[in-house]
Amino acid sequence: MMDVGSKPATRRRAVARAHVAMPEHVRERIADGTLPKGDVLAAARIAGIMAAKHTPDIVPLCHPLPLTMVEVTPELSDGGVAIVAAAETTAQTGVEMEALTAAVAAALTVYDMTKGLDPAISIRAAELVEKSGGKSGHWRRAEA
Amino acid sequence: MMDVGSKPATRRRAVARAHVAMPEHVRERIADGTLPKGDVLAAARIAGIMAAKHTPDIVPLCHPLPLTMVEVTPELSDGGVAIVAAAETTAQTGVEMEALTAAVAAALTVYDMTKGLDPAISIRAAELVEKSGGKSGHWRRAEA
Amino acid sequence: MMDVGSKPATRRRAVARAHVAMPEHVRERIADGTLPKGDVLAAARIAGIMAAKHTPDIVPLCHPLPLTMVEVTPELSDGGVAIVAAAETTAQTGVEMEALTAAVAAALTVYDMTKGLDPAISIRAAELVEKSGGKSGHWRRAEA
Amino acid sequence: MMDVGSKPATRRRAVARAHVAMPEHVRERIADGTLPKGDVLAAARIAGIMAAKHTPDIVPLCHPLPLTMVEVTPELSDGGVAIVAAAETTAQTGVEMEALTAAVAAALTVYDMTKGLDPAISIRAAELVEKSGGKSGHWRRAEA
Amino acid sequence: MMDVGSKPATRRRAVARAHVAMPEHVRERIADGTLPKGDVLAAARIAGIMAAKHTPDIVPLCHPLPLTMVEVTPELSDGGVAIVAAAETTAQTGVEMEALTAAVAAALTVYDMTKGLDPAISIRAAELVEKSGGKSGHWRRAEA
Amino acid sequence: MMDVGSKPATRRRAVARAHVAMPEHVRERIADGTLPKGDVLAAARIAGIMAAKHTPDIVPLCHPLPLTMVEVTPELSDGGVAIVAAAETTAQTGVEMEALTAAVAAALTVYDMTKGLDPAISIRAAELVEKSGGKSGHWRRAEA
Repeated sequence: MMDVGSKPATRRRAVARAHVAMPEHVRERIADGTLPKGDVLAAARIAGIMAAKHTPDIVPLCHPLPLTMVEVTPELSDGGVAIVAAAETTAQTGVEMEALTAAVAAALTVYDMTKGLDPAISIRAAELVEKSGGKSGHWRRAEA
Repeated sequence: MMDVGSKPATRRRAVARAHVAMPEHVRERIADGTLPKGDVLAAARIAGIMAAKHTPDIVPLCHPLPLTMVEVTPELSDGGVAIVAAAETTAQTGVEMEALTAAVAAALTVYDMTKGLDPAISIRAAELVEKSGGKSGHWRRAEA
Repeated sequence: MMDVGSKPATRRRAVARAHVAMPEHVRERIADGTLPKGDVLAAARIAGIMAAKHTPDIVPLCHPLPLTMVEVTPELSDGGVAIVAAAETTAQTGVEMEALTAAVAAALTVYDMTKGLDPAISIRAAELVEKSGGKSGHWRRAEA
Repeated sequence: MMDVGSKPATRRRAVARAHVAMPEHVRERIADGTLPKGDVLAAARIAGIMAAKHTPDIVPLCHPLPLTMVEVTPELSDGGVAIVAAAETTAQTGVEMEALTAAVAAALTVYDMTKGLDPAISIRAAELVEKSGGKSGHWRRAEA
Repeated sequence: MMDVGSKPATRRRAVARAHVAMPEHVRERIADGTLPKGDVLAAARIAGIMAAKHTPDIVPLCHPLPLTMVEVTPELSDGGVAIVAAAETTAQTGVEMEALTAAVAAALTVYDMTKGLDPAISIRAAELVEKSGGKSGHWRRAEA
Repeated sequence: MMDVGSKPATRRRAVARAHVAMPEHVRERIADGTLPKGDVLAAARIAGIMAAKHTPDIVPLCHPLPLTMVEVTPELSDGGVAIVAAAETTAQTGVEMEALTAAVAAALTVYDMTKGLDPAISIRAAELVEKSGGKSGHWRRAEA
């Protein structure tokens, strides 16, 4: 775990996203709320928030950070479920991994609750969208 | 958490994969072993194995399972790092989520150890490849 | 942790309940879905299910058990939110603590999401309702 | 998880209590130290302290906090075991949930170690007693 | 994590020990129960039992096992505190790591609660004493 | 958990070590990289870093700390594997337990990956080497 002890604590924010691609008939079941495992989007939101707090347990070299905000928004989108996760802290290192872990855990939860209908459902493009705070300043993913 | 108490315990296996897409110069640093955070593939392997065991903590509706085998293989591939994760158990429900969680945690670890070089590195196509055991029998992803 | 190695593995079930007592104006906000922290009953359900799996981490002498079912049902009731939690396993010892831990964690979650409106909200009567399986057979709480 | 990033870090304290109601013959066994699972009050104290640290894993929307003090005091009382738990931090949000989770985990531990004698033992009135620090200032539960 | 899926589930037992060496004046404080952090032996016992259950989280390649018994006995001994930890399961692989992790966690707890008096206190000879069950049969450490 | 709320947050560092004593033929297998469970030193390093973050879950009275650096270095040494673990934070209490827990978890991992060759392999002398920061200032173990 890298030494961040000499860096100043600054306000940090990161936003990540993930997409779960699925056939239309599965997407409709989520929309209708008729899946046997219950409300997919509500479960994915909670799973993402809790996973953000578990990031240092999942990613070996991540520092434990005092998260001041985590927001996970799973929504029906074209072709499946789109998840956006944001995390914030005031710390000596950034929260990219917390945002990304939250997005990915929400995506895993969506898959878990829909895989009975189609195991070929796939998580696509889990990636950082934006980060700010710290020496490297603001970064935003260039859109295609 | 669905009731699986009436299902017979059978031998189960699942294989999942994930891909971390990165620029060639980052891939070379992994190959050369010159990244400041250390050996990426070794760390990703351990992270994946440990995450498989944490699956029920990450995915809300997953059953706790007595895993009998977990194998995570991160390798340099065209355009980045390809991860294959396999999990096995003898249980009343399958290990798809364990294999997928292992693959995804290994991918998060690769991203964590390379993001300093390029935050745009992205996790792509985290998905189940194959599963066997249980009532639904053997399933294999159709290749494009 | 008591030695249960000589006991036969039998099908076990336990049901527990907890009640969160709150003023009517808070209960209405849950019903209306207008609390700033989001959907209380959905979050409490997920929290309860996940906590059931964490029981051996919370209660020192609990055995780790292969839970085959966990169901947590938080509902609006007279005077607040009533939670019923059920857990099942096939194991050498019972799941009373899993059901009770699930009920209590759901209750803590309800409190966390409503305490901003009234810190005096209180958890009442967290207790076992019923258990079956094992040598002691079926037990049901006598109602007043 | 609500955004507390703009709030000042202040010294916070919360005190919670829980009561485990039990028949006199069980209470005597705790007092005599003759229960097969060992020293109930010592185990409940440790369980409560450890659970305070697990609060963000148990309660989905709780922020991780740098606890500076946790004290859990389980004592024999009229009709059972009374638990008082106190938690302190210097942070941007309060420690009510940490104190309450500690009290409840200690109560679950008491139940676990006595339920073999009487499964009808019940956790009653887990609730906040007092909190201080933060914008809302000092609050104390009105006694009946 | 090695594949143990083809091995038969057999009854397994392992016993480990650890020794915490300390000056006589510290040992006396434990005996007198006058340390500011409380009852050392009771806390070490609980810490050891809980750590046994966390073994797969601490030791990367350990399988999750359904422990049927864990017993941790920290006692005052010549020159400090001697810890004996036993673990049992019926599983496809052994519980050596669970017994050893329990012994070591109890030793860490003893050190934590006494280090304020003398930071030079040291954990010595954490090692397996005995194991049985499984293909390799009974093994007992040869005494010097 | 002792009250450290009135202590100033200062920069803290601790270094601990552990030694795993083993026969020469096992040590050679680690050096050759021919053990069936894989690269022992790489796994031990990751295990140690992750365990440092789990210290408050393993040692009951440890405060959760915002670790700013953890470094675990397992190396082949005379008679086995020598592990040095360092931890740093800026906090109101020290990181001795984090450094020691990291060293011990790395040692447990070495044992787990070599015990198949010889169960008599033993962890020796897990102890603090040095600490600095805080009121008690710099301390260094006197060498024999």
